[in-house]
Amino acid sequence: MSDVPVRPSRRSPIVGRFMPEEVALASRNSGMPLEALRYDVTPAGLHYLLIHFDIPASDAATWALSIGGEVDRPRTLSLQEIRAMPSRTARVTLECAGNGRGQMSPRYPSMPWMEEGVSTAEWTGTPLAPLLRSAGIRSGAGEIVFRGTDRGVDRGTEHDYARSLSIPEAMREDISLVYAMNGQPLLPQHGAPLRLVVPGWYGMASVKWLAAIEAVNTPFDGIQQAHSYHFRSNAGETGVPCTVMRVNSLMAPPGIPDFYTRTRIVPAGRVALAGRAWSGGGVPIVRVEFSVDGVWRDADLAPAQGNWSWRGWTCEWEASAGEHELACRATDAQGAVQPEAPVWDVTGFGNNAIQRVRVSVR
Amino acid sequence: MSDVPVRPSRRSPIVGRFMPEEVALASRNSGMPLEALRYDVTPAGLHYLLIHFDIPASDAATWALSIGGEVDRPRTLSLQEIRAMPSRTARVTLECAGNGRGQMSPRYPSMPWMEEGVSTAEWTGTPLAPLLRSAGIRSGAGEIVFRGTDRGVDRGTEHDYARSLSIPEAMREDISLVYAMNGQPLLPQHGAPLRLVVPGWYGMASVKWLAAIEAVNTPFDGIQQAHSYHFRSNAGETGVPCTVMRVNSLMAPPGIPDFYTRTRIVPAGRVALAGRAWSGGGVPIVRVEFSVDGVWRDADLAPAQGNWSWRGWTCEWEASAGEHELACRATDAQGAVQPEAPVWDVTGFGNNAIQRVRVSVR
Repeated sequence: MSDVPVRPSRRSPIVGRFMPEEVALASRNSGMPLEALRYDVTPAGLHYLLIHFDIPASDAATWALSIGGEVDRPRTLSLQEIRAMPSRTARVTLECAGNGRGQMSPRYPSMPWMEEGVSTAEWTGTPLAPLLRSAGIRSGAGEIVFRGTDRGVDRGTEHDYARSLSIPEAMREDISLVYAMNGQPLLPQHGAPLRLVVPGWYGMASVKWLAAIEAVNTPFDGIQQAHSYHFRSNAGETGVPCTVMRVNSLMAPPGIPDFYTRTRIVPAGRVALAGRAWSGGGVPIVRVEFSVDGVWRDADLAPAQGNWSWRGWTCEWEASAGEHELACRATDAQGAVQPEAPVWDVTGFGNNAIQRVRVSVR
Repeated sequence: MSDVPVRPSRRSPIVGRFMPEEVALASRNSGMPLEALRYDVTPAGLHYLLIHFDIPASDAATWALSIGGEVDRPRTLSLQEIRAMPSRTARVTLECAGNGRGQMSPRYPSMPWMEEGVSTAEWTGTPLAPLLRSAGIRSGAGEIVFRGTDRGVDRGTEHDYARSLSIPEAMREDISLVYAMNGQPLLPQHGAPLRLVVPGWYGMASVKWLAAIEAVNTPFDGIQQAHSYHFRSNAGETGVPCTVMRVNSLMAPPGIPDFYTRTRIVPAGRVALAGRAWSGGGVPIVRVEFSVDGVWRDADLAPAQGNWSWRGWTCEWEASAGEHELACRATDAQGAVQPEAPVWDVTGFGNNAIQRVRVSVR
């Protein structure tokens, strides 16, 4: 089904305390609790989840993926056929483009992530590029559209969730059609039975419940491609599409938490800190800094885990009694550094401002 | 370690919009998306999670459970020894005692569940009662204390999460020490490698990351037992402990959602509705009613799934164009019925008011 034409329907920005709609989204979606930064690969059920509409009820036995549009050899593949193709497993960090939205002001009415919309999994599937090659993309085609079966309404437009990639981007060798995660069959909430995984990009590109791949010769104008997921300084602008992840880092907060405030209680003395840093587009992390009360120093980097996964870092701190603010900041190989404060964006995308953790040392 | 004595520290009630602390709790904890009501058993990663402090980093190989206190034969068991004991699997519905708190006003500052803090799993473990019998509980003992390794601060008190059960309650044949969930090893966030599961009670009794079982001859005064998880009409009262779940029900919202408001869009015509109903203490569900715009009628009950699991229900509705409000209401075998509005409670426990779902029929 195609998108129902857009009816103008703009959500008003929010200042201050949160709306029940935001809390309902935060309750049904899931962040990765930051202590799970301890795992190289996020365990099942701790990977963040942003589910736009409902999780579809899918049947792997009858699932079919169609490949069509501007191709010479359209075809339909069963899950069994896709599983029989060459497979590979890749460790990939995905982050929601809206991660950190809840810390911006004014704030766009949507999922109010604080900082926990990021995770890493081992994704197993078959490479996309050979399938596209064998379908024979016609010379006039400019984009490949990926359609999920998750359907709903956003800003007045009823649609199946769908995104596109340019032909060169779609032909990247590292993009996969994925049917397993961390060595287990893909879970319903992660797109079972089949999803796209686009390493290095924000999560919106990794279309879940993937049912159709279509080559098109005009730019795809679906709402999730042409309207959502754009950086905008002012409402109403066309904006710039969200693509690769911005450089970012997090620490696992040390000590123990207060249940409600999540303020950390840390015993005085030597504290071992650890966290993860990542960037987009396969650009490696080259530096992580750690600060106590605004005084920065270099953290130690763990070995890289390939081009698409977050990189571990550690640091030690001689904690003295009192209230302190800890922070971390990553730099990537292209020289991109996390900013002190969120870069303004109308709908709250791409907030990679440095994380601050309040600790009470006793 | 024992609890650090309570310093009075009361959180002020909240009216209206939500605090960042509530949103941070909603983002790190996880509700069950209501479309997952379609599953008899909630799949891994969709089961609700209320994690008071941090998920402990546990090592199954070195894990030990101590059984001590007022017993004749104290002992320490490895996970391997517990796994070698007689095992059984039970389908159990657990609900957070704070489910529905976010819909109350004024509202206690805590996890602001709307309605999604409930799930059902197949829990595999060994019965608790034979272990207690073999330890030889002394005649003076009145309670059994269950201690987890998750440590934090709540209202000024630093403590390991711990709860107690009276001896008769602890000796119930259906309580298990659990090491597997839905046929897989217990996940870190669900209490790996070992947890308690107390069927029929709100979730707070099912202590995760269980490290110690202790028979005591004075009432256990840990904060999570003696102070938290009490029903109170007024702040400062001793209150009545939360124990068995109250009768409750939910429907899977029909049609498709609007992303932000979650209002449902439903095509006119026949709509198949389905949901789940449950009560506590092993009391069966005997009736579920469904209403459209306040007109109630009986839904059809699916066969019961044992004493401890939610029960399915279905209903058909001839949907006419316009805005409608759907609701469902369960009755249990003891005649308990869900109320129209939340029963007042200072800290927001036990809200089993009927669910209302707004739908727009087109």
